[in-house]
Amino acid sequence: MDEGAFELLRRITAVGPRLTGSPEAANAVEVTRGMMAEMGLANIHLEPVTVNRWVRGAKEQAEIINSASRATVRLHVCALGGSVGTSDSGITAPVVEVKSFEELDRLGSAVRGKIVFFNRPMDRSQTEPFAAYGAAADQRVRGAVQAARHGGVAALVRSLTFRMDDFPHTGLMTYDEGIPRVPAAAVSTADADALSALLKKDGSVAVRLKMSCRNLGPVESANVVGELAGADHPEEIILMGGHLDSWDLGTGAHDDGAGCAVSLEALRLIKDLGLRPKRTIRAVMFMDEEFGGTGGRYYVKDGRRKGEKHLLAMESDRGGFLPIGIAAGRSEAGLLERLRTLSDLFKPLGITSFSPGGGGVDVGPLIEQGTVPAAVIPNAQTYFDVHHSALDVLERVHPRELELQAVIMAILAVIVAQEGV
Amino acid sequence: MDEGAFELLRRITAVGPRLTGSPEAANAVEVTRGMMAEMGLANIHLEPVTVNRWVRGAKEQAEIINSASRATVRLHVCALGGSVGTSDSGITAPVVEVKSFEELDRLGSAVRGKIVFFNRPMDRSQTEPFAAYGAAADQRVRGAVQAARHGGVAALVRSLTFRMDDFPHTGLMTYDEGIPRVPAAAVSTADADALSALLKKDGSVAVRLKMSCRNLGPVESANVVGELAGADHPEEIILMGGHLDSWDLGTGAHDDGAGCAVSLEALRLIKDLGLRPKRTIRAVMFMDEEFGGTGGRYYVKDGRRKGEKHLLAMESDRGGFLPIGIAAGRSEAGLLERLRTLSDLFKPLGITSFSPGGGGVDVGPLIEQGTVPAAVIPNAQTYFDVHHSALDVLERVHPRELELQAVIMAILAVIVAQEGV
Repeated sequence: MDEGAFELLRRITAVGPRLTGSPEAANAVEVTRGMMAEMGLANIHLEPVTVNRWVRGAKEQAEIINSASRATVRLHVCALGGSVGTSDSGITAPVVEVKSFEELDRLGSAVRGKIVFFNRPMDRSQTEPFAAYGAAADQRVRGAVQAARHGGVAALVRSLTFRMDDFPHTGLMTYDEGIPRVPAAAVSTADADALSALLKKDGSVAVRLKMSCRNLGPVESANVVGELAGADHPEEIILMGGHLDSWDLGTGAHDDGAGCAVSLEALRLIKDLGLRPKRTIRAVMFMDEEFGGTGGRYYVKDGRRKGEKHLLAMESDRGGFLPIGIAAGRSEAGLLERLRTLSDLFKPLGITSFSPGGGGVDVGPLIEQGTVPAAVIPNAQTYFDVHHSALDVLERVHPRELELQAVIMAILAVIVAQEGV
Repeated sequence: MDEGAFELLRRITAVGPRLTGSPEAANAVEVTRGMMAEMGLANIHLEPVTVNRWVRGAKEQAEIINSASRATVRLHVCALGGSVGTSDSGITAPVVEVKSFEELDRLGSAVRGKIVFFNRPMDRSQTEPFAAYGAAADQRVRGAVQAARHGGVAALVRSLTFRMDDFPHTGLMTYDEGIPRVPAAAVSTADADALSALLKKDGSVAVRLKMSCRNLGPVESANVVGELAGADHPEEIILMGGHLDSWDLGTGAHDDGAGCAVSLEALRLIKDLGLRPKRTIRAVMFMDEEFGGTGGRYYVKDGRRKGEKHLLAMESDRGGFLPIGIAAGRSEAGLLERLRTLSDLFKPLGITSFSPGGGGVDVGPLIEQGTVPAAVIPNAQTYFDVHHSALDVLERVHPRELELQAVIMAILAVIVAQEGV
């Protein structure tokens, strides 16, 4: 087991943060196309995707303005992806803390003119981190809309992490037609606790929020595609993919440079073994997962899909950590049962868990059309420590853990390429 | 799932490096006895263990003396545990590189008067890190004896890690009666590669090695014992343990502060649930695993063992990483089969692998007497990055991964305490 996936990841993260529509995202398209060429993949090409470009801007800051002590305390904040900015002088308003939308609804017009502070932590009693994330993410995605519905002037959202530290975690937020677009920012967990404690002591705490983030409109971008062409059934596709775009606070090493590197490394491993698969094994570097999956939607609509049949789609977008299981199939038990009969193959690689599942934002449109999903499931206990924050950098990825993902994904791809589903 | 194990580990590592026989090891005895008292455990006591005290001393350095360029290049080295030191002026001698004892035997008297450089890397193609470690560790443990048998004046051993960096990794080495005791040091992997490259270019490379490490002789120390007394069969024991001593370059967070913290936290979890187990569940903080397992040997010989029957012994000494499996039993299939029937209990905790195994240095003497071994098996892919080096510190342990170990160990202990084996 060499550590090729890590070297690919090093080159992808060296491009820098790859926010959708940014020059760095465009560079990443060229870098991964170049990798495919070095590997000698077939049918390497770009497929155009029109994405929206949002930029963070130079200014994003927030201070607690404590009317009792007249002290000004800086908070660690970042704009949420898609948020409107503030005016140059910012928004200064009293803060009201809520733990849920229900609590906000009960407060109703009492939040008018205020900054709504959504402070429900991720539930540590959940052993499954994605479940805890899913149960708290409504605050980030829908907090601004819910605040604005009641006359709130901004949303300040506790960062989605189990850790107690000073790093704000960004991520997508959305607006609704007909509801005022108010700014939305994430605040670090340590500052969220401090702000909450201050509110308990002195109900009249205000915050000043300044953000220069803004939407710049549509930009041309691309998905990057390369493959090992199938010898017998080139039109039958086994797809492996990750997303090239990332958030802009770190360098998107786990999210999702890792998924791109693993997919490419899996193809390289298969090619280096001299295998000529019966069916086509394809790697797709999707563009714009983070702002809602544009690349995945374009992929299924592209004219090149005519005459192609996607048997299996494996999205890798849960971090580059140790693989701990394989997920395969929805209602179909066929593939899962077949993989279980091959458990001796996977056991030395640490895989003893086979469950229904797979899928994701990028391959969602394919799955809807009947493609069978599968995925290598990594350990996610540390994922949300770094997710969407400045901590998501190469140093947080382990070369052997990443490579194991590629090895297992390669085996899955070859099994289906030779046997079908 | 709170993060209590991490807080215990924080307090254990705050003591500092806990080399066998050191004042810090003695402090750790008191710190963990205090933790047991805080938890309200029963029968808290120390059991005396006489250990040998070895100290690293202030000086440990090595330089490449390149006769061609007259350049002096410092190597990152550390004395191996138990090694004799050098004279104040050190040892200066030509270096001869070997990859195995067989190669050394073939060179025979050609190594006389030389420093033997054991440079066989851990095998990256091994997916199981402990297997790669085991296949390379002979160089560290027996390199000095093998070098001295052929007239070598010192052993310089490539550090046992997959990573390429500047951190030397220490660990136990041994001498044989009748063979000259020559100094033994570990060199970082990056320096091992550099030295090897230089030797290929210029066969006449010499190294100067200075080390002031030495043995100070026997010291009184202790195992720390506390328990939840069994309600029905107090004399039947389920033992959970780790070792209090550590190497001195880091603070022994993974090796084996983690094992101590997990064992204590497992007991705390059981106690906090209000469970009164039928059989006794005992935590033992063993002293002196690293220099050969003195604490484990004293434990079985202690007079308190009279009338006790140890049903199960769970040693936790593979790092504080994500638990990925349960090992239980040797030839006996009984416990393993029983645990498999409870797999629904373990699956939400990420455990789908049940294998024969368990045991370790500290519980070895118990297992020899017929106690059934079991263990929570963690992910070891990153373990040897930090193992026995300055990198084995608290920051490298993840609170949620550590806590999962404690939760699973607590469940295992309760099952056997209620059902027997």
